[in-house]
Amino acid sequence: MQESPKLRRLVSLLSRLPGVGEKTAQRYVLHLLTADPQIAHDLGAELATLHDQLRPCDRCGNIAEVVPNEPETTCAICRDHKRDARLLCVVGRVHDLMAIERTGAMRGRYFVLGRLLSPLEGIGPEELPLPRLAARIAADGVTEVIVATPPSVDGEATALLLKRELAILGVTMTRIASGVPHGGELEYADPITMGRALAGRQSL
Amino acid sequence: MQESPKLRRLVSLLSRLPGVGEKTAQRYVLHLLTADPQIAHDLGAELATLHDQLRPCDRCGNIAEVVPNEPETTCAICRDHKRDARLLCVVGRVHDLMAIERTGAMRGRYFVLGRLLSPLEGIGPEELPLPRLAARIAADGVTEVIVATPPSVDGEATALLLKRELAILGVTMTRIASGVPHGGELEYADPITMGRALAGRQSL
Repeated sequence: MQESPKLRRLVSLLSRLPGVGEKTAQRYVLHLLTADPQIAHDLGAELATLHDQLRPCDRCGNIAEVVPNEPETTCAICRDHKRDARLLCVVGRVHDLMAIERTGAMRGRYFVLGRLLSPLEGIGPEELPLPRLAARIAADGVTEVIVATPPSVDGEATALLLKRELAILGVTMTRIASGVPHGGELEYADPITMGRALAGRQSL
Repeated sequence: MQESPKLRRLVSLLSRLPGVGEKTAQRYVLHLLTADPQIAHDLGAELATLHDQLRPCDRCGNIAEVVPNEPETTCAICRDHKRDARLLCVVGRVHDLMAIERTGAMRGRYFVLGRLLSPLEGIGPEELPLPRLAARIAADGVTEVIVATPPSVDGEATALLLKRELAILGVTMTRIASGVPHGGELEYADPITMGRALAGRQSL
């Protein structure tokens, strides 16, 4: 196939995005080529400066805007004084933080672990930022830690590790509920989900 | 949700890509933020200069690299003298040209219509570049036109229009085959595809 080197390079870079293969990348480029040139230009300018303008929050690991000449980079949630500093929600990834924020139901702050315990992938307790988490809990006078790691093998293992490691701090630890999702058909729920829905039943 | 304006702007721009919603766009940004900063930077630089470096080939409509100080922008296929100029493959979109090129079986050149006849979308014969196609056929001494528009309602209508409009040029016109795809199960083929496979049968 006789493709231009520019096209090949752009397709190869776009293929680095999660879930994007060569065909999808090509579709993106063809779309941008036929759309308003301003879109490709603006998108390019934003991406080129991405890492200069956004980086992990020094306090929680959420995405934060870099403020020039500020020694500390903090996210909007950590800076929001209306948030309850005593309620701390621990998540695995920023994606999960965002999913929780979309509910509008979280009035506390967050701590992003960045990874989950995963014996299969060789990620042990020492790879998790537990000392930093413990320091944060102590410094902010946290009274409740909500463990919002996913209800997967790695997520559950991480939750158990946190329970054990943070027990010494005397903080209340809770775990998000797991069960049949909203709108889900019981008929199609897998046995583990159904079992969790039963085990986690609450009085009506 | 307390998101940074930079993040919001980037997500909104990425959502302009075909098939990309807000969640996917967010996933792309989070991926780029945790990956090597060079990737976002390079991708941004390539996108920002996309329209300065790539544009439709003046002769066929394929993607072509812009050469500074050249009056005409031509693609690699139109410049390739080993291609048979007398064999011209007419496609609807550059995507289709690329799909045909991937076979490595096309030894002629292309002409990209840019759109298909579509009464439903209000696209009539006058919106198609028929005069430019006729001129190309005459100028290049084309002897066979392969109509490779898709086997859809619009694609078939376009093929019939081309047959009618180009008849006066006395050029041989062929249509790509339509039938059960390679590896496809007859059991799952829709009736129209199956009907086409029967009608287009060839001697063994």
